[in-house]
Amino acid sequence: MIQEKYTYDDYGNNYPNSRKVYISGSRPDIQVPMREIKLTDTKKADGTVEENAPVLVYDTSGPMTDPNYTLDLEKGLPKLREAWIEERGDTVKTEARGFQPGDDGQGGDTNRMPFQSLEKMARVAKEGANVSQMHYARKGIITPEMEYIAIRENLGRQAAFNSVYMKSEHETGLLTQAQTAGMRSANHQHPGQSFGANIPDFVTPEFVRDEVAAGRAIIPANINHPEAEPMIIGRNFLVKINANIGNSAVTSSIGEEVEKVQWSTLWGADTIMDLSTGENIHDTREWNLRNCPVPVGTVPIYQALQKVGERPEDLTWELFRDTLIEQAQQGVDYFTIHAGVRLRYVPMTAQRVCGIVSRGGSIMAKWCVSHHKESFLYERFREICEICRQYDVSLSLGDGMRPGAIADANDEAQLGELETLGELTKIAWEYDVQVMIEGPGHVPLHGVKENMEWELEACHEAPFYTLGPLTTDVAPGYDHITSGIGAANIGWYGCAMLCYVTPKEHLGLPNKEDVKAGVITYKIAAHAADLAKGFPGAQVRDNALSKARFEFRWEDQFNLALDPVTARSFHDSTLPGEEAKTAHFCSMCGPKFCSMRISEDVRQYAAEQGLSEEEAIEKGMQEKSQEFAEQDAEIYT
Amino acid sequence: MIQEKYTYDDYGNNYPNSRKVYISGSRPDIQVPMREIKLTDTKKADGTVEENAPVLVYDTSGPMTDPNYTLDLEKGLPKLREAWIEERGDTVKTEARGFQPGDDGQGGDTNRMPFQSLEKMARVAKEGANVSQMHYARKGIITPEMEYIAIRENLGRQAAFNSVYMKSEHETGLLTQAQTAGMRSANHQHPGQSFGANIPDFVTPEFVRDEVAAGRAIIPANINHPEAEPMIIGRNFLVKINANIGNSAVTSSIGEEVEKVQWSTLWGADTIMDLSTGENIHDTREWNLRNCPVPVGTVPIYQALQKVGERPEDLTWELFRDTLIEQAQQGVDYFTIHAGVRLRYVPMTAQRVCGIVSRGGSIMAKWCVSHHKESFLYERFREICEICRQYDVSLSLGDGMRPGAIADANDEAQLGELETLGELTKIAWEYDVQVMIEGPGHVPLHGVKENMEWELEACHEAPFYTLGPLTTDVAPGYDHITSGIGAANIGWYGCAMLCYVTPKEHLGLPNKEDVKAGVITYKIAAHAADLAKGFPGAQVRDNALSKARFEFRWEDQFNLALDPVTARSFHDSTLPGEEAKTAHFCSMCGPKFCSMRISEDVRQYAAEQGLSEEEAIEKGMQEKSQEFAEQDAEIYT
Repeated sequence: MIQEKYTYDDYGNNYPNSRKVYISGSRPDIQVPMREIKLTDTKKADGTVEENAPVLVYDTSGPMTDPNYTLDLEKGLPKLREAWIEERGDTVKTEARGFQPGDDGQGGDTNRMPFQSLEKMARVAKEGANVSQMHYARKGIITPEMEYIAIRENLGRQAAFNSVYMKSEHETGLLTQAQTAGMRSANHQHPGQSFGANIPDFVTPEFVRDEVAAGRAIIPANINHPEAEPMIIGRNFLVKINANIGNSAVTSSIGEEVEKVQWSTLWGADTIMDLSTGENIHDTREWNLRNCPVPVGTVPIYQALQKVGERPEDLTWELFRDTLIEQAQQGVDYFTIHAGVRLRYVPMTAQRVCGIVSRGGSIMAKWCVSHHKESFLYERFREICEICRQYDVSLSLGDGMRPGAIADANDEAQLGELETLGELTKIAWEYDVQVMIEGPGHVPLHGVKENMEWELEACHEAPFYTLGPLTTDVAPGYDHITSGIGAANIGWYGCAMLCYVTPKEHLGLPNKEDVKAGVITYKIAAHAADLAKGFPGAQVRDNALSKARFEFRWEDQFNLALDPVTARSFHDSTLPGEEAKTAHFCSMCGPKFCSMRISEDVRQYAAEQGLSEEEAIEKGMQEKSQEFAEQDAEIYT
Repeated sequence: MIQEKYTYDDYGNNYPNSRKVYISGSRPDIQVPMREIKLTDTKKADGTVEENAPVLVYDTSGPMTDPNYTLDLEKGLPKLREAWIEERGDTVKTEARGFQPGDDGQGGDTNRMPFQSLEKMARVAKEGANVSQMHYARKGIITPEMEYIAIRENLGRQAAFNSVYMKSEHETGLLTQAQTAGMRSANHQHPGQSFGANIPDFVTPEFVRDEVAAGRAIIPANINHPEAEPMIIGRNFLVKINANIGNSAVTSSIGEEVEKVQWSTLWGADTIMDLSTGENIHDTREWNLRNCPVPVGTVPIYQALQKVGERPEDLTWELFRDTLIEQAQQGVDYFTIHAGVRLRYVPMTAQRVCGIVSRGGSIMAKWCVSHHKESFLYERFREICEICRQYDVSLSLGDGMRPGAIADANDEAQLGELETLGELTKIAWEYDVQVMIEGPGHVPLHGVKENMEWELEACHEAPFYTLGPLTTDVAPGYDHITSGIGAANIGWYGCAMLCYVTPKEHLGLPNKEDVKAGVITYKIAAHAADLAKGFPGAQVRDNALSKARFEFRWEDQFNLALDPVTARSFHDSTLPGEEAKTAHFCSMCGPKFCSMRISEDVRQYAAEQGLSEEEAIEKGMQEKSQEFAEQDAEIYT
């Protein structure tokens, strides 16, 4: 039934010359995966050869890209975190709520495709216990998840260090602070501008703990999703990206959705949101969760709406609460909850060009207006927190009032809701529930920065998680680009996670190629932001790629690219054939003249004269200095 | 031989529901073309119908999209400006230098494809005369070109005004300042942030003249390219984009290049650069110029290099000077001249990751080092200006030291050259020669703004014209996006023209689809910048598109898009068929529930109760206020 199976070969085909490596932590079951891109040697003009250090990159693809692991979608991924959760001794296994008639919407139960029998038992906090990473952090406990994250986030520093001091092989384990000194300049790293972010030279487990305790970062890690590899979302860590997947009433199947999970994590999605609203909602989520190596988020009101036949006014707190438990027990790592949509904000949208465009926001607005009542998400927010702390579900406070048009950006409805999200953040923190804040949407470029500043102030530095923002409305079909511009900027200003937008936004449901285009565009935006913020080591990959480019190491240039497949195919389209992959020219200038080769020629010319390049030029300069002075006088009169 | 012929049908197929309109100036031969996008009516919930004003957009496609004009590539476009040039009485016709053996490079003359016999005569300034737009501007003369530009730049204001005050039809002629008052707020226009740009509410011919006189803007308008429709490049005008085309030693033909001219101007390129380095350089340029409705730029040293068998050290001033005259007489509107590459800057690049990547820069660096001499472009700069003033060729001072890698951004070589470009700008202005300054390249996001600030200061506010900049090196295959991010930002900060980058950058020569991807991406970047700077009326198209989106006017949404073809095809890919084009739903949510329709429902619900939406909610609020107060007290404890 689920036919698409990725194997290590796919990894190899998409990432040639890469291999999966693991960096060990303080205990044998902390093995942090990274992708190592091996490079070829530099052949210097004098005939000598210089090795190029392999480059380590952040790897979100999970076990499927490990050659020692045989993927089995029907079995699911290994439960990496199960022992860690178990040994904390604060959870019990209980009979899961599981699937119940109506969960897939009315008339939607007939085509079920359950994921084996795994859903019979679920893990839950012991009576009175709090199992959130924030709770541990505030008690001063460094969890294995936190250490794992520290190693993972340090990869840039590690790689930067290696490229300077070790050349051809990488070291395992952590660097000392002393080792990182001088690394920036040795790597031509720009210092960056971080707008008040606190970016350490070196990420320690204690730093991770402290950021989580303060609420400045979250670790989405439901105890029922032990398959997920720990990751962190916060302004002082690498900028992350999310990929939305999910079926709709119109299209898609479980097989396609699981394929999108694998496909998007292969290309670099840090989290996935399953936004399914079609049939098989429960089973689709189960298959996705069991095969997803990154945290999974949902918008529970979407499923709740299906359960009441898509009539928002029929929603009840009891039904919604039951949906939260259903999803928390399946392992959803974060819930988008539109609890900030208060009755009073709804009329503020009446004069907008695009009204309310948030799906969750409009559902709750309709409910509020139909019942003349304040939203049950707002009124029952403490009960929601009670559920979250028992499973460590993080809250992603939805921006139901987000602008859907440039005209509607940064208006009073949006700002009002943001203030409410700040209030709710403080309540969640009373329960040690982890919180991030969702943001817009459509915002002109000059209005992006104030969104970030408002969020930091109104929401007490809780991590910001934005959709784009799109910087113009005029390019449907290219909204990955209109929004990638806004995303790079808001990431630079301090946004912790960027929700991708695909080329199909506003027009249709994304297929596999759209998902890839969205992920790659957002990897670009996040990396541009990381560079601009000045994360130590962020520039290592850029430097390695540019060096390969300058030295005509075409294969290395492709392999270091975010998308080696496309880079290679574009080169092939003009100059196919293996010989062009080692040629010291490209199709722009042709074989005879080459700008970059002239730079080499300049250096070589100087060397042949027994002088360094600088000396040779200096010599020429001295001989000519008198002449120049005379000419200058002539030119400037 | 030249088979590709665009007709009005192509226009119609690519821009459905659009028509070409002309706005008249003060004299009958000033007819400024614009594209009018007709919209369908809004059908309101109460059964009434409201007309939507058509939207006027800037049109760079020239006569080929006029149904009354029959395109003939072998004849060339009509000579729009010939009468204006003639009536100034300061030029004569002279025997043109024309084609000479060797012009297409050694051995390249055998496959000539001359453009008829038009090249026998060329126009040149009378002895001692200066025919530059800057010269006229400084003498206080408002040329027809300047008035044309004022009308063209005002289109946004006109359209914004119409949408508020006139609804269904547009007025011809100029608006008064009084008429533009209040337009911003009536159009939900954000004020923007312009970093010191002087953006008037209304562009007058006198404003154009003043900006050109001050050197803050240029009108590239060679007297031998009367086919070009006047346009302006300057910080206080709409942000422009350039598309590079041209053959190489490896690939392409004249037919393909002319097709790229038509294709890129159809999609919105404001200028074209012909960077041909392959065979038929002279004839390719002639065909392009005669069929190009926008200004054409070149890098003359490219052709000069071909003439000396691609050996930079064999270049001479005499050969280069002859090449300038050859190209000026053909009608090239701006020359990129790398006169800032001084001998002293060359060694500063020795420690770079990517050395010198500018093709012109590396040619001159090689020449300088080979001869131990200062560049003849620098030494003979006044003679270059003498040529330019006779044909009104604008100078685009090339950044031969531009960084080709993130690591090399904003270094001393780049800055040193910029200072020299500032000196040269002042010299050019002594000759009333129009100048813009070329900029990078590869720059991390946080370093983009200082590039703009340096340029404004060092080069006395001459317009800046940048390639991107690319904000990371790690995404070959997607460099239209890595650079589109930088381009939007630098456009916002004040860059006047953005040179596009296609997806093939660094990898191969762009084909037709790559050219389109580059142009559309840069139209997005330029428009995002225009919105952020707060140009009056810039938001009209965004607002119209978003209104169409909200009202499910799918056809209008496609037709208002920068690329209607792609927008429509993406919609078709999920929901093919005409019925889906009028459906009040889309594939994301399916037919039953729709976020945006709920907003309509909210309004309708309120109306049914005989109350305005706001009143209805207010009523609900009042009834519940006591209850809420009690609940609030409970929630916040």
